Formats: sequence, structure tokens, C-alpha cells
Amino acid sequence: MDKKYVYFFGDGATEGTAKMSDLLGGKGAGLAEMTNIGIPVPPGFTITTEASVYFYRNGEFPPSLEEEVEIHLGRVEQSLDRRFGDVDKPLSLSVRSGSRVSMPGMMDTVLNIGLNDKTVAGLARQMGDPRPAYDSYRRFVQMYGDVVLDLKPETEDDVDPFEEIIEAVKKDRGVELDVELSAEDLKGLVRFFKEAVKERKGVDFPDDPREQLWGAIRSVFASWDNPRAIAYRQINNIPDEWGTAANVQSMVFGNLGEDSGSGVAFTRNPATGETGLYGEYLSNAQGEDVVAGIRTPKPIEALAEEKPSIYRELEEASRKLETHFRDLQDIEFTFERGRLWLLQTRSGKRTAYAALTIAIDMVAEGLMSKEEALLSMEPEQLNHFLRPVFDLEQKEVAVRAGKVIARGLNAGPGAAAGKVVFNAADATAWAERGEKVILVRVETSPEDIRGMSAAQGILTERGGMTSHAALVGRQMGKVCVVGCSDIRINYKKRQFVALGGAVVKEGDEISVDGTTGEVLLGGLETQPSEIKRVLIDETLAPEESTVYQPFAEFMSWADAARRLGVWTNADQPDQAAIAVKFGAQGIGLCRTEHMFFAGDRITSMRKMIVARDEAGRRAALEELRPMQREDFVGIFRAMAGRPVVIRTLDPPLHEFLPREPAQIEKLAGQLDIPAEELTEKMETLRELNPMLGLRGCRLGIIYPEITQMQARAIIGAAVECVRDGVEVRPEIMIPLVSHVNELFNQFMVVRDAADEIMDAEGVTVPYKVGTMIEVPRAALTADEIGLIADFFSFGTNDLTQTAFGFSRDDAGPFLRYYVDHYILKEDPFQTLDVNGVGLLMEIAVEKGRGAKAELEIGICGEHGGDPATIAFCHKIGLDYVSCSPYRVPVARLAAAQAAIKAAEG
Amino acid sequence: MDKKYVYFFGDGATEGTAKMSDLLGGKGAGLAEMTNIGIPVPPGFTITTEASVYFYRNGEFPPSLEEEVEIHLGRVEQSLDRRFGDVDKPLSLSVRSGSRVSMPGMMDTVLNIGLNDKTVAGLARQMGDPRPAYDSYRRFVQMYGDVVLDLKPETEDDVDPFEEIIEAVKKDRGVELDVELSAEDLKGLVRFFKEAVKERKGVDFPDDPREQLWGAIRSVFASWDNPRAIAYRQINNIPDEWGTAANVQSMVFGNLGEDSGSGVAFTRNPATGETGLYGEYLSNAQGEDVVAGIRTPKPIEALAEEKPSIYRELEEASRKLETHFRDLQDIEFTFERGRLWLLQTRSGKRTAYAALTIAIDMVAEGLMSKEEALLSMEPEQLNHFLRPVFDLEQKEVAVRAGKVIARGLNAGPGAAAGKVVFNAADATAWAERGEKVILVRVETSPEDIRGMSAAQGILTERGGMTSHAALVGRQMGKVCVVGCSDIRINYKKRQFVALGGAVVKEGDEISVDGTTGEVLLGGLETQPSEIKRVLIDETLAPEESTVYQPFAEFMSWADAARRLGVWTNADQPDQAAIAVKFGAQGIGLCRTEHMFFAGDRITSMRKMIVARDEAGRRAALEELRPMQREDFVGIFRAMAGRPVVIRTLDPPLHEFLPREPAQIEKLAGQLDIPAEELTEKMETLRELNPMLGLRGCRLGIIYPEITQMQARAIIGAAVECVRDGVEVRPEIMIPLVSHVNELFNQFMVVRDAADEIMDAEGVTVPYKVGTMIEVPRAALTADEIGLIADFFSFGTNDLTQTAFGFSRDDAGPFLRYYVDHYILKEDPFQTLDVNGVGLLMEIAVEKGRGAKAELEIGICGEHGGDPATIAFCHKIGLDYVSCSPYRVPVARLAAAQAAIKAAEG
Repeated sequence: MDKKYVYFFGDGATEGTAKMSDLLGGKGAGLAEMTNIGIPVPPGFTITTEASVYFYRNGEFPPSLEEEVEIHLGRVEQSLDRRFGDVDKPLSLSVRSGSRVSMPGMMDTVLNIGLNDKTVAGLARQMGDPRPAYDSYRRFVQMYGDVVLDLKPETEDDVDPFEEIIEAVKKDRGVELDVELSAEDLKGLVRFFKEAVKERKGVDFPDDPREQLWGAIRSVFASWDNPRAIAYRQINNIPDEWGTAANVQSMVFGNLGEDSGSGVAFTRNPATGETGLYGEYLSNAQGEDVVAGIRTPKPIEALAEEKPSIYRELEEASRKLETHFRDLQDIEFTFERGRLWLLQTRSGKRTAYAALTIAIDMVAEGLMSKEEALLSMEPEQLNHFLRPVFDLEQKEVAVRAGKVIARGLNAGPGAAAGKVVFNAADATAWAERGEKVILVRVETSPEDIRGMSAAQGILTERGGMTSHAALVGRQMGKVCVVGCSDIRINYKKRQFVALGGAVVKEGDEISVDGTTGEVLLGGLETQPSEIKRVLIDETLAPEESTVYQPFAEFMSWADAARRLGVWTNADQPDQAAIAVKFGAQGIGLCRTEHMFFAGDRITSMRKMIVARDEAGRRAALEELRPMQREDFVGIFRAMAGRPVVIRTLDPPLHEFLPREPAQIEKLAGQLDIPAEELTEKMETLRELNPMLGLRGCRLGIIYPEITQMQARAIIGAAVECVRDGVEVRPEIMIPLVSHVNELFNQFMVVRDAADEIMDAEGVTVPYKVGTMIEVPRAALTADEIGLIADFFSFGTNDLTQTAFGFSRDDAGPFLRYYVDHYILKEDPFQTLDVNGVGLLMEIAVEKGRGAKAELEIGICGEHGGDPATIAFCHKIGLDYVSCSPYRVPVARLAAAQAAIKAAEG
Repeated sequence: MDKKYVYFFGDGATEGTAKMSDLLGGKGAGLAEMTNIGIPVPPGFTITTEASVYFYRNGEFPPSLEEEVEIHLGRVEQSLDRRFGDVDKPLSLSVRSGSRVSMPGMMDTVLNIGLNDKTVAGLARQMGDPRPAYDSYRRFVQMYGDVVLDLKPETEDDVDPFEEIIEAVKKDRGVELDVELSAEDLKGLVRFFKEAVKERKGVDFPDDPREQLWGAIRSVFASWDNPRAIAYRQINNIPDEWGTAANVQSMVFGNLGEDSGSGVAFTRNPATGETGLYGEYLSNAQGEDVVAGIRTPKPIEALAEEKPSIYRELEEASRKLETHFRDLQDIEFTFERGRLWLLQTRSGKRTAYAALTIAIDMVAEGLMSKEEALLSMEPEQLNHFLRPVFDLEQKEVAVRAGKVIARGLNAGPGAAAGKVVFNAADATAWAERGEKVILVRVETSPEDIRGMSAAQGILTERGGMTSHAALVGRQMGKVCVVGCSDIRINYKKRQFVALGGAVVKEGDEISVDGTTGEVLLGGLETQPSEIKRVLIDETLAPEESTVYQPFAEFMSWADAARRLGVWTNADQPDQAAIAVKFGAQGIGLCRTEHMFFAGDRITSMRKMIVARDEAGRRAALEELRPMQREDFVGIFRAMAGRPVVIRTLDPPLHEFLPREPAQIEKLAGQLDIPAEELTEKMETLRELNPMLGLRGCRLGIIYPEITQMQARAIIGAAVECVRDGVEVRPEIMIPLVSHVNELFNQFMVVRDAADEIMDAEGVTVPYKVGTMIEVPRAALTADEIGLIADFFSFGTNDLTQTAFGFSRDDAGPFLRYYVDHYILKEDPFQTLDVNGVGLLMEIAVEKGRGAKAELEIGICGEHGGDPATIAFCHKIGLDYVSCSPYRVPVARLAAAQAAIKAAEG
């Protein structure tokens, strides 16, 4: 028997199913599925992907195909009581491509096939109006001429030959719009189009409907290999050998009088999640008219009054679709002479609030399981419940008025408005006197932290998604736009100039949208989110919030579904407390260096750095120790027995020193050393590539007294907490280890310091010592390092930097180029590079657990909050992910989704 | 049957063999081996490592051991006709440790066991003189008291208790030297020693010889676990469970009169390689007297006259040892009353010249195969045939006179002397007027190249073994000492100050030893090597050189034995020509950037960099193209059909711009742009971590016109050569690829440019396009990259930098600390880190060849000239190594050794 190449779909006789997308393509399988569940879909048939593969290999259709198509065409004719090519009751068809996975807009489509000078008359009679019939006809000839007969502009600068003709006719008629052309005019257009085809391409336009159909099928098959589609496949790793199906479907018409019409609808309200159809429609109109904006559509409720039976049918279809797809659907429909057809259904886009409401409702309605509900929400959407937002209408007005003066990287989502200041000291001072400020800097450094904290939002000219500003901003929950190369800051003039010429001076109001990366002139109104008001600010009672209850319930489902722990990156007790309220189960990264900038500490730190000998360093460190101890006490209390991973000093020492000559002079005075000596010391600390220089554990190895002080402070704080009845789980993390001996060296320093404190205090606290895995060599030798380490934590920022050889501070310009030019699909600092960095992680997990089965493994790089990365971390068996406090809910959901998807296989 | 724990060695009855070193330890197996081949060795026995392992596990000796020792002791007594503990004919013994592998000085030794107040009298009779007998006795008590009875200084500051006693006695006797003490004095010493032991350790010194023996054996076994030995094992990865053997051997005496004596000898002259015994001896003396320098030894030739039969015996033993060990031997011997004993034999150290002569001679004599000859020479020794050398005596005098004022890293071997200059311009100017100069810089940059070329030697204050100065210096064959932190340069004062206070001003003469890293005050005489005079300078006819013939022959053997190709890193035709003369088979790395510093080119390059748009860049690049083309023509001609791997532009663009304000001003004038614009442009090029910034293929991707120009120049040059009948094999190498798409992008640019030139010229030249593998991600995804690349070349400098996260420019201070503190065994920039970087290379080779079996793979990092790395490259199947021209012979030999050792398994 010959292979079956054609599958029918249509009321009652569908041959395919949703599972056959390999054979029928995604669209074909979807059409089959819709008809299978009783949705009225205009009948048609799918020519399989296998037929196209045969076509590519042999340069012709399979021999049996023509007969199969005829048989199925007959079934369509029968179903609709129309006949293809018939003068009285003509059937017109569409042919659409459709491969296994969606390749939107990459391949060809031809509509209204079957029209010619004779059948168009029948169509005009069917429609009761020649104009729409001739309009369909001219659209067909235009589309077929372009797609199948290849009449296109010859160069990029040429105008479209069909549009040229239309313009000429309109000019001749003295009209401006296409709709002003009469049936006769359209008939004339058809003639001109066909003449142009004959003249320019040397072929007669085919009048025979079957010739038209086969030409269209051939074109659709061939469009699999157009350059655009090939490029798309390369970028998206779609195999060339899959081929595409061709879907041949009957055309239906919503413009055959008042008993016809078209509309679009959501099965529920996509803004609020409210149940019931939500949408609009037009009587006596085709689908494109509904969205074209020439006639004003009516709300869908009107249909219930005007055409109650159609509305009921639509409601039923909506229910069926929701039940079947277990999700909000966005549908297109047409009713032709009282008969409803659904043309398309797909998952509907919705607001975060709607997504939450719909998920909760659908579970209550038994329409979906909790797992499906969890999968229905984009993790990123949870941000909307946490971050301040602009008044959307007000922003829209501002956008239209051209107030958007620059765009940068959306490093810290949310909305902020305030007066521009250009340094951290001003930010603090202005904020203290009650001003809302936006801190605008070329780039930020640890010295700016207090100013960043005081500002509503942060805007930097340079730096990537993992620059200092972005990192600290996210951790603080600040609105933050970085790497905004559209602006040029002039500190001296206390102003910046935007690309378009706008000059913004100190004190001018701007608004920063950290969700989109936009910078706007003027101050827009912002408001904190309800969840934040309930959980963090406590300015709203839970029961007063319409969002809090569903949010809390939804998150409890996520927690039940996930295996991965979700920890947070926090350096201060208040950050830790916020993170815990958002559901953090531990601190995965407590950076100790930020603590050294507060108050007088920086002076002690600087004393340590410029000390002439070890004794001098020790003396300065002893000044810092009680303060460090106090920090850790606060954090341990906030975390109340949850694990706290504390990283020993990591950044290069020069980051703690001032840069400006005046400040250096001042510091020299404070430290009571000649300015020249200080400058010389700073010169010896200067490095060509500080990222690869004296930092991380290298500091603690060369100056063991630093690690010693930190270990004493940590264990001292733990002892104090234990005495006060607070449970503690400190984990001391050694950064930038590349060789097991580095870890061993620091492990010994920590152990000796811990023993000393515990002996002296007579209290024993359990603690772990582990390491960051953040350079490739550590991952590659994890079998050695795993023998010493109690835990690993992937520092994927540095691991990405070193695996690629990209500095995150300097890669901005070329990374943007790379992503724009498809050299990289994504910025690897935002979404983990699975093939390279991910492979290193897999090697490290396998080798590390091989050395020590109970090794605790997490990730504390910025990737820890990225849903795609979280899915990968679940897959390779990490114990937890750690992210900034405001991303904890996102990570909890992403972890749940990863677990659900993995269980589904 | 009980396990056998004791193995006899001695004339005619030896139980062990050379292969039993696991059981007998290295020393025990060696003693057995010597006796097996008929060398007279003082008889004794080895207690096996298994006995020691039993001892550690059970805290006591195996039960059967005592009986076995007694039996073997009997055999020793019989063999020598002496008896242990006998008053008339006392036998004295030594007990020495000896594990599987040599752990020099880490474990214990006790000599002269068996002496007490009675037996010493017998010994005195044997010796015919009480003084040597009592001296042996007091040495025994002192050694036993220290090693076995643990009478040591109590703190580090204390003096040795035995030395304290000796000093007191000498003071009492009014003498200064030990040798001035009489037999009576020595006898007194013994008594005082024993009293001190009793008083301080509370034990009686054992008089019973057997008690002494077992105490010594116990101590030797236990010394396996002293802290020093444990540390040594950790550092050298020696398993704790191996344990040590104990070698119990009879003492023989060279001080029993004129028919006794001791000496040391080489089996051939270690300085010249001349055949015949070479050494010295003393009659009536123990071995230590020969080296102590109190009596002047006689040359070994005198022995032939004085004691012809001993001399003949010694010659025979020498011949046997050479035949057996197939290598020059360094032996110690004693003859006691006319009977010759060999106490030790080991491979002899020799000069490079001797090594070469001996290897050639021994092959001719049939003593060794060519393979063995190749293995007998340290590859590094070949440097001595290539580099200029100091007059050794003159240097020795200078060293003794304290002229060594600083030490740095020995980056470019050889000897140089000249006047100090502090900048490249002066170096060029002074050299032009005939002065020999040493260029002294804080660090060098590409701008300094001409000055470096003009100087005899280069000295820098900063930078590691792969800093710019080191790299360029080696490539030029310059004597070069870098990272010399013992000096502080003051450019303003035109002087540097050395750590010891010496001030060296501009124009002062210094000498730089690039082989040792020493810097000396004053100019020492230097001379070029013979090989260089024959091969490169052509100032010496081959037949006039005593070295050239054997050198050439030896290298031809190496070439026959090796599988790895040896290529060179060269940027200029003259470098290429030198490398070819040294045996290079291709250029593995031609850096194009150095070419842009010559003459006016730098101006065009700078124009390109500061151009405001692509058109400006293209115009500047077109100025450069003919010059680049000319460079490549020169190189292709020099290489005459050998492959030439040319790397496209790699360094960050700011490296081509000046740094000083005055120069910037001047450049702005040359480029006809405002200085402010130039400064601003330079500011945008500034990067925090240039090593990880906009460089490598990232430049060629963002500015395709650069790669295009270079590809055109390369293919244009190739076409020109082909026209002139010169064969060419260009290979275009894309640097710093981290993702296959980067390579693909540049591959397309190169292909288009090449097609264009070849079409225009009507000549086709074969060329390859490949990539550096120099960031971890490239190695990890070599399966993808291998699909596009024709070849891989490991850039192990950058690969080491990124795998460890070390910047080679900044790692100096902590790397030195790491190596000094055993955190790393070796500087990974000098010897490849096999566990980490090597693993990446293995992954890349496997994945790359999986993608493309015929993939050509080499290494062009500085490691390419390191023998250990070359062995690794052989093992993992690379096609070639590429190194600087002067290292080519070293690499040829190292490659041969790798192949020979691999074949041996």
C-alpha cells in the first residue's frame, strides 16, 4: 500500500490528533485536535511533512499524492456543499505551511485559492455583493503573483510592483484609500496584475483552480528552503530534514451580510482574570476588519444580545478549549450565515494579576491541576507583584509625547522617579532632606553604596547586567538601568546629554523604568506593589489586599512542587529579613566586603591595606573584628537557624581606596602617612587586569590574618547567638579557588581560628568550610577540591567570564553586537551558557559528588535567579539556587516549574 | 613459611636485583645491582619496605626479623672476616634509609654502629692508630645520640648540645680545629657525650652493639614519619603506605695506612667528555677527607702509578658501570689495605659539551643506542650551544666580589653586558653610535620593540615569564631578566636603586645573566656560541668548529626519533630564517600586530583606530595593506613552502596608542584632529580588564574590515610568491574564539576576501582557516568549533590565564608566593598545568578530532618550548609544537625524548 500523505480535518471525520505534530506539523495537529474535541473548524486537510521530504529529495510530489488530494478535496466540498472551481457555489481554499515547531512568518501562505474570472462571479453571488468578492480576488492574484510566481521588487529600493499598480489606479480614480475603490476598480486591478505578471515573469496567470492549488502547495513546500527559513533554523537548531506540512483549508466569510461576522475573544478577561468571554466583534466583516480600526468593533457582550445562539456556541467552544488546553485561550472566530467557525486558538497573553487569578480559579474549577497552574505563570511575571510600578496611562502619554530620551539595560525592574544627582554624597544629602533622587553615575563603585541606598533609582552610563550597579541595585531591590550608552555624563557641568540632544541638569526630574530600561524626562507617579506593602512595609493588612491571598496560596503550591532550595544573596540583616519574608531558606552569598564601607570601617580597612607590615595589618583588622562580628550576629538572628554562606574577602584591595587626588590627600592625613607613600602604595596595588589579579582566596593566602579575622568574627558571632538561644548554621566560603591547595590553606586558617574562639568561649558551633567554583580549573579538578570542601557554590558570573574570556565590565559593546548579529543567542551573563559554562558545572557536580557524596552544591551567581538557569540547576542536581531577595519568589516558581517539567520527562 | 624480610648483598651471594626497588627501596636495589654486575661493594643486607610497613602497623618488628638479621649478619662477618662486637676484629656497620624513590636527606642514617669502649680498641689496632678509631667512635656516639636518642637543641636558638661540648673541650685545649684534638681528647668527648645523654635524656648510652643496631633500624624506620619526610611526600605525591627499607652495610676504612685510601671519580671527563677516568684521591684517608679540602688530593692519574692494580680494578669497575648504566657515572671509592670498594655510583652531572661528546662517543662505542644517547641529554642544556656566555672565571670573581646586586626571573637565557639606558629611543640611538646597551624598563610595551632589538639585553622591574618583555625577548633571542623586584627604577633621575643600596645610573655598565636571572655591576666579557657563529652569523666554518659536527649529528638522531613537528613563533623574515636554520618546520604563530609598529605604519594604525567611521577605518587599513603584504611575502620566502600560521589582529586597540600627554598631543597633530577628541576616543577604549575585553576575534567581528584587509594581504602575498615559483602554505588563525559562531563569522570574511583576491589575480592558492584554542569554552565546545576549523592551535598562555583566573601580568607576586609555599608545585605559565589546562587540551583534542579526524592540532603558547609540556603534547597526540626560534633545538630533543619514553611505555 502507498504511504498515506494526506489527513483530513473537519467536523466528524478528522484523521489526525494533537500527538501527530511530527507528521502533520504543529498547525495541522492543532487543527485536527480542535475538530476532535468538537470545535467547529473550517474543513480541510493536511499534506504531511513526509510528502515535503519526498518533494525535496525527488524534486516532485509523491505519485499517489494527487489522487489523495482529490479524495480529500471531495470531502471538504461535501462538508460545505461548495465545489472547488464551481461557478455557482465556488469553494476557495488557503494553503499554509506548518512545521513541527512554530517558525512564525518564515514560510509562505496563499489565501483565496480557486478564484478566477468565472468563480469570482459565483462568490459575488454568495456574498450578495461583488465588491468583497473582487477584493478577495485581487488579494489572491496579488498574493499568488508574489509568493508563487515570484513577482517581487527587483532591488531593495524598488517599490512592490502590485502596490505600484494600486497606487496608479487610486491616483487615476482620485481616491486615497484602498476601501474607496469600487468593485469595477478592483476588477481592473486584477487585470493589471495579471498583465504585469505576464510582462515581467513571462507566464500566464493560472486560471485553473487546480493549477493554482498545486502551485501554492509547491511554493509552501519550497519555502522551507528560503534563506530566511534556513537562517531561522540555524539559529534555533531546527534540523533541515524535518520539512514542513501544507495545510489546505476552506475559506469562510464573515462578510456575507448581517448574519455573518468576525471577532476575537479571550476565554477570560486577560487583564483581571475574571471569568467569562472577553473580546469584540463586527457584523458583516472579515477578521482583518476587526483589528484594522476602520470600523469600531462592539464588545462581545453585544453578541449575546444580537446573536444569542452564536454567542452560546462561542461560549461552549471557549469552555471546551479551556478544558482541553487547560489554559486561557485567545481565539479568532467567524460566523458565516449563522454558522460559527473557529479559525485559531492559542494560549492567551495576560497580566500577572490575571495569570494569578486564572490559575487559582482554574484549579478551583477543576480545569487544571496545581502543577498545570504553576506552569501557566511566567516566573518573571511575579516581579509585577513586588516592584513599584508607574501609572500605566500616565506613562503611555509620556511615551507618546516623546519623553523617552534614552534606553539602557533593564538591570533592576520597577519604576522610579526623582531629581537627578550625580554623586553618592548628594544622593544621601538630598534624600535626607526629603527629596526623591535618581543617582546618575558613569559607573558605580562600592564607595557609592550609601548613596545608592538613598536613591529611588540608579542610572549608569557604563556596565553590564552584572556590573557593580546592577548587582548591588538588584540586591537592594532598587530600580536600576545600567550601560545606558545613549547618555553622556559630564560631572563637571553636573549634567548629562541624551543622544537626541536633551540636556538634563542636576535637580531635573526624570523617571526610570527598570523593567524596560527606559529613561523618561519628567517625574511619573509610582506606587509600591500590594505584596510589598503587605509583606515588607506592613502598611496593608493581608485581608485588605486582593492579591495577597492568591499570591500566598500560589507560592505555597510552588514550594510543594519544587525540589531545589531557594536561598538569597544578602549582606545585611534588613536584606536578609526581606528575603526570608519572600521565602528564602538560607543565605547563599553574604559578601563581607560591603560591610567594610559603612561608617568608620572604611578607615580601618584602609589602614589595613596601607599597613607597612603584618603587625600593622593585624592592628587594623582587630579594629574591624568587633564590627564584623556585630554584622554577623544581626544576620544570624535574621536568618534564625537557616544556613548562612559567608564569603571571605574577595575584591582587590584597591577597590577600598579612594581615587581622587583630594581624597587621597585626606586619607593620607587620616592615616598619618605622607601622601607620597600612600600614592606609591596605591601604585603597587594597581593591576592591569584586576579581575584576574590579587583577589579572592589569593588575598587570604598571602595575608592569612584577613581570613583569620573574618573566621574569628563569624565564629564569635555564632557563639554569641548560640548563647542567646539562636540557632546558627554558618558556612564559610573561600572565593576564587583554582587549586585544591588554595582551599586547603584557607581551610586550615579557618579551622585554627574557629578552634581558638570555641576553646576560649567554651561553646562549640557546627560550621562548614566550602568554596566557590568560579574558575574553570576548579570545576575541572572538582574531584580534588571536593575532598576538602563541605560545599560548592557556583559563581557563574566569574565562571562565565573565565570560560569565555569576557570581562563583564568590558564586554558590553561587543556582547550587544554579538546578540544583535546572532553570534550568541543570549547574553551569557543573563542566561547561563549551557554548552560551555553548564558543561563545566556538570563536570564539577559529577567529580565533586564522586569525591564526597554528601557535598552540598548551590549557585550564587546572578544566574541563580534566571528561570532557564534554574531549570538547568534542577537538572544537574544542585541542592539550591541563591538569588537577590526580590527574585526569591521568581526562583521559587521557576524551581517548581523545573521539577514539574522534569517529572513530565 | 615466614615472609622473607632480609636480602643479602655482597660478593657472589646477592639476593636482590635492580628491579626489586619496591621491596628493597632504590638504594637497596642499587647495591644489589652493583654487586650483581661484579662491582666490589662492602657487603651488607637490606631489610625490606614490607618489614617497615609491618612495623608501622604493629608498633614492633616482625617476629622472624631478628633471626633473619642474625643469619645475614653472619654472612657479612664471614665475607669480611670481622665480627660484630668483637674486640679483636670488630665489624662496624651503617644503617641507611631507602624508599622506592629517592627522598634526599629526608630520613635518618647512622654510621659506625658497633663501637664501644672495648671494640674501639680493636678498631684502633686494625687502623694502626688510635686517633681515627676514636674519631669514628665519637662521631658514632654523636650521631646515635642525636638520631636515635633524640638529644637535640631544645629550641631553634639553642646550639647543638654535642657541638657545645666540642667547643668547650677545644677551648680547654686551646685549639681551634677539630683535627687538632688528640685521641685522648676524643676519648674524653665520648665520655662527655654519654654523660650529656644520660643527664638530658635519662638513658644510658647503649654499649651493646646489637642494641645499637636495633635502635638504629628502629630510628630509620620511624624517620619515614618525621614531619620533614611527611611534607616531602605530600609535595611529591608519594604514598604514605610505601614505607622505607633499611640498608645495613659494613663500614670500610680508607685510613688504615698507605695501602688504603679514598677518592671520587667520573668515568669520563664531565667538562669535556674525554674518555678515561677523571677524579682525585687521597691515600690513608676517608671519603670525607677528600672533599673537606684540608689535604690536597692527587689527580686520579697518580693512582695509576702509585697503586696500578687498584687503578686497573677501578677502571674495570668504571667500564662495567658505564656498560651497565649506559651513562657517565660519578663514583665514590675506598681501598682498604689494597682491597677496592665502591661506595656509591650515580649518573654524573656534566657540561652540555661533555654531554654531547659522551653521547656521541658512547653510541660509537656501542655502549648506548641512539635513543639512550638522546635521553642522556637534558634538553635545556642545548641552550648552551646557542646563547652567548660569560667568561665563567671572570663571572666567578665578580660573584665573589659581591657584584650581584639583584635577581629576577631568567626569562631569556644567555649573557649580556652593556651600558644602562632607560628608554627604547636611547637604546636605539646609543646602539647606532656603537654602544652596547642594556635596556632597563619598569615593563616593556610594543612601542619598545625597536629599542629591545637594539639592546644586548633587557631588564624589567615587573612582569612574569610570559610578560611582553619575556615573550618578545625570547623570540628575538635576547638576553632577558624580568620581574626583577630587587630594583626600583626612577625614570626621572635616570637611575635605578638595587635592594642592597647600589645606585646604577644611565650609562653605568652592568651585566645580565639571563640563564640565572642575576644582575651584576660592571661589564663582564661575553662571547657568542660556536653553533650560532656557524649557523647564523656564518663567521665560523663548520669544519673549524669542534661542536658543530657532533651537534648536527645528535640533532639528526633527535629528528629521526620524534613524531611531533617542531615549528616556531616568528613575526619577521629574519626570525623565520634563524628558526629554519635551527630546524623549524613551519611557523606556528606569526603575530601580525608587531608588524604595525615598524616605521610609519603605527601612524596608519592609529588613524584606523581613531577613525570616526568605517570609511575612515578602511582608508587607513588600505594604507597598511601593501606593507602587510610585503611582510608576508618576506616570511613566505624565508619559509620556502613550510606552513605559516598567521594570526589575525589580537591585542586591544589601545595598545597601539601612546600614553604620555605630550605624545598624545603630537599624535593628534599628525592625525589632524583635536587632542580632546583623541583623548576622548582613548577614554572610550579604556578597559578595566583589557585581557578579557575587546580583542582577538572580537575586533575582527566588530570591524570586519580589519580581518578583510589582513586576509587580502596574506592571500595577495601568497599569490605573489606562487607567481615567483615560491611554494606557500598560509594558515589563517582566528584568535580568542569562544563560540563556533565567532569562527564561522571570521571564516566567511576570510573566504570572501581570499576568493576576491584569487579571482582578481587569476591564481589559486590553498590556504587553511583555523583557530586558537585559548579560552576554556573553546576547548569544551571543540566538537562544534572543529566542524568549521581546519586546524587548532593551543594558546596555552591565555588558556592558563582563563582556566586559573590568573592574569600573567598581575600574578607575579602571588604566584611566587604560591610556589614558595607549595600551593602550586610550579608556575603554570612555565610548565603546563596538566590536571587543569591539560585536561582542557585533552577534551579539545578528543572533541575536535571527533568532529574532524584530519584536524591539524598544535600548540603555540610559550609552553610549546617547555620539555615537560612537549612530552604531554606528544602524549595527547598533537601534530606539532611551536616555540621561539632559539628554543627550536630544545624542542626537537624534547619531542624525541617524549617519543622514546612513550614507546618504552
